[in-house]
Amino acid sequence: MNSSPIIILVRPQLGENIGKAARAMLNFGLTEMRLVAPRDGWPNPAAGPAASGADIVLANAQVFDTLAEATADINHVYATTVRKRGVTKPVLTPEAAVNEMVKAPGRNAILFGAERSGLESDEVNVARTIITVPINPDFGSLNLAQAVILCAYEWSKHQSLVSPPKTDLDPPASQFELDGMIEQIDSMLEPYGYFKPADRAHVTRRTLRNLFSKPGWNSLEVRTLRGVFTTLAKRRIERENG
Amino acid sequence: MNSSPIIILVRPQLGENIGKAARAMLNFGLTEMRLVAPRDGWPNPAAGPAASGADIVLANAQVFDTLAEATADINHVYATTVRKRGVTKPVLTPEAAVNEMVKAPGRNAILFGAERSGLESDEVNVARTIITVPINPDFGSLNLAQAVILCAYEWSKHQSLVSPPKTDLDPPASQFELDGMIEQIDSMLEPYGYFKPADRAHVTRRTLRNLFSKPGWNSLEVRTLRGVFTTLAKRRIERENG
Repeated sequence: MNSSPIIILVRPQLGENIGKAARAMLNFGLTEMRLVAPRDGWPNPAAGPAASGADIVLANAQVFDTLAEATADINHVYATTVRKRGVTKPVLTPEAAVNEMVKAPGRNAILFGAERSGLESDEVNVARTIITVPINPDFGSLNLAQAVILCAYEWSKHQSLVSPPKTDLDPPASQFELDGMIEQIDSMLEPYGYFKPADRAHVTRRTLRNLFSKPGWNSLEVRTLRGVFTTLAKRRIERENG
Repeated sequence: MNSSPIIILVRPQLGENIGKAARAMLNFGLTEMRLVAPRDGWPNPAAGPAASGADIVLANAQVFDTLAEATADINHVYATTVRKRGVTKPVLTPEAAVNEMVKAPGRNAILFGAERSGLESDEVNVARTIITVPINPDFGSLNLAQAVILCAYEWSKHQSLVSPPKTDLDPPASQFELDGMIEQIDSMLEPYGYFKPADRAHVTRRTLRNLFSKPGWNSLEVRTLRGVFTTLAKRRIERENG
């Protein structure tokens, strides 16, 4: 069962915003868009450029005259709204809503209202559940594409399509390598009396060990540093001999 | 200690995008913006209209000639990048990065590169940690404001400023109220032989109880339904008497 939510734009006004919504969707792996009574008809020449390459979403978008037709085959309808008083439906964050969607059998859809006015009450009432993005109470100014992207982003966290970031970070060097480096710097410092007085030597060495353990340098970095130390040691010998 | 991340835009190109980034930030309670060598200077007349009212962020934005100056007082610098090969720093999602930030002592900053090219390698290297938004590998097309909003959104989940959505949903009616309604419909159905044959009556009643328990109707809804039933019962009596 494909539970990827269908994004339903209800009475969208500007083709540009439909395109931006498509782009937001595809970034996070959502591909099914439905349009209910788009103001300027469909297709809309302003949508394509704004989609920045998410043409497949626009090409496959389905258009309906009414919200009832657009949601006829949907099992779980969610309506996005800004904060409202007197809402008598469950209100979830995008995060909580997608946590529900991934578990629920059947098809999910998320309704987004017209850019200026949002969903009307009768449209909200089609849904069993409301999604509200928790937002700065002193400055709530999410546009359509931003509301879409936050829902799609939360959805994507559950999907394998969207791969997590990877690092090529090497693991820290072994203790053996680290010990070798610490011994090297220790033997370089010793002749200068760095570890005197003798009764403080242990604490000083512990401080140094902590210092060099903390970065988690990898083998290459440890070898690089040993080269630095070796170079410094050579210079000292040359100066002493020179 | 205020650990709210500072958003640092490095060599931003268009004033419009600076304004959109400010809007994205303030939606989720972030107010500190820094600009490093904005291409068209600062202030930029295109920024204000695009900020849609987030003027305070723009008014307080600090401008620096170099990234070194802009990050001088920052303890934890994060660099946003798209997926790159050979990255030898920890790479976190926005979610994992803010989980780090809220725990870390000192000031956090997130670097965002120029719109077209992103951060250069030397700029990425200022950071100890990389943030990469996990994205559709076949269609990665996040713009600057979208990258900013996803980071700000994740940050906001940890903040009390951004209040979670509320519902005025009443709790389900008590079992007593529900039982009263079920008894009413039961006594209405009984005369019609609905519960015959007698040996099936128990199962039929269980089915009905399940049906009426499932919605979780509140007290007002139960009273409304009882009114509906009462009306139906009246009509029946009238018909029978008429």
